Amino acid sequence: MRPYEKVPSAIYAQSFATVRSEANLARFDDGLQSLVIRLIHACGMVEIADRIAFSGGAYEAGANALRAGAPVLCDCEMVASGIIRRYLPANNDVICTLNNAETPDHAKAIENTRSAAAVDAWLPHLEGAVVAIGNAPTALFRLLEHLDAGAPKPAIILGFPVGFVGAAESKAELAANARGCDFVALRGRRGGSAIASAAVNALSAGLPEIAK
Amino acid sequence: MRPYEKVPSAIYAQSFATVRSEANLARFDDGLQSLVIRLIHACGMVEIADRIAFSGGAYEAGANALRAGAPVLCDCEMVASGIIRRYLPANNDVICTLNNAETPDHAKAIENTRSAAAVDAWLPHLEGAVVAIGNAPTALFRLLEHLDAGAPKPAIILGFPVGFVGAAESKAELAANARGCDFVALRGRRGGSAIASAAVNALSAGLPEIAK
Repeated sequence: MRPYEKVPSAIYAQSFATVRSEANLARFDDGLQSLVIRLIHACGMVEIADRIAFSGGAYEAGANALRAGAPVLCDCEMVASGIIRRYLPANNDVICTLNNAETPDHAKAIENTRSAAAVDAWLPHLEGAVVAIGNAPTALFRLLEHLDAGAPKPAIILGFPVGFVGAAESKAELAANARGCDFVALRGRRGGSAIASAAVNALSAGLPEIAK
Repeated sequence: MRPYEKVPSAIYAQSFATVRSEANLARFDDGLQSLVIRLIHACGMVEIADRIAFSGGAYEAGANALRAGAPVLCDCEMVASGIIRRYLPANNDVICTLNNAETPDHAKAIENTRSAAAVDAWLPHLEGAVVAIGNAPTALFRLLEHLDAGAPKPAIILGFPVGFVGAAESKAELAANARGCDFVALRGRRGGSAIASAAVNALSAGLPEIAK
């Protein structure tokens, strides 16, 4: 069998060197560069750098929120599972309400998806929170509806819903009007829980070589 | 705000109709079509259909193994987290050994990554198992090393490690010589835990509209 690289530090170094040499990162500040590099590392696609939408102070806003103890609100368990807990700077709560016992009935009551219904349970935690959406377009749409209705503002919205129905549209809506929140999003159909988790990990700890 | 689709069945139907209309699925049998459609649905990229490597009987081999009670061996917690437990046909065990207490020391002992060390703990469960790798190239390389050394064969290897160092190479090695196992893999840098989980879910339950 062919030889392969087995040393974790060498794997990381070579990975990030490849990303830096291939991706267009010039339009991002240092914080956002570390975040975008982590997104690329999570999905293997350097070209997503060209489809990132963001607000100017997004990295600092998200990193400061985490340092201040903000909870991380996730739209699905896979996103929560990918958040590296030891990187979180304030032992932050990671909250996923999708599988709360009352979510299915609430979805029927509001005539929306379970993912959207789960967002309604975020409201007590929303002010200053870090929101990480890696699966459901309806979760992002529902959040924007709440913000339009005057809900407390999260510190940052990490918008990475994926798929063929509503993913591109919900992220376009966010990028066009983030309702006064900071945000980072990947335009188009692509996204996913690994990318959303990677964004949170970047806000926690920059790049791995910075973290330790 | 723009209107959006809120009915889960309509979202699924529209998603899968889009995938079927855009992806090249003709080279796959019915089972593999359902699997590839789920992979595409998980990542939002129809073009990955053209980069799928597989053995002829892969879908039936994997589905039969699950029906017979095979465990699912995952290289990371995100893959395990994405497996829809209620779809599993035999209340199958889902095993991830990455965070076993002894894994870090074992990694040092074998001079390899934690992900590779975790594979060594799969050996008692490997015969006839469903292996789902959605993160670490070194996990797939290590598994192939064990098979070369005479380890028991899994029923199917779902090969979806992601990234810039070893991902394309490990999957090329698998596709060139699957060591007598059935397999499905996505060639190149792309992959990830959501795709690996989706492959397991497809083996469990076909497409959502088939499942119920």
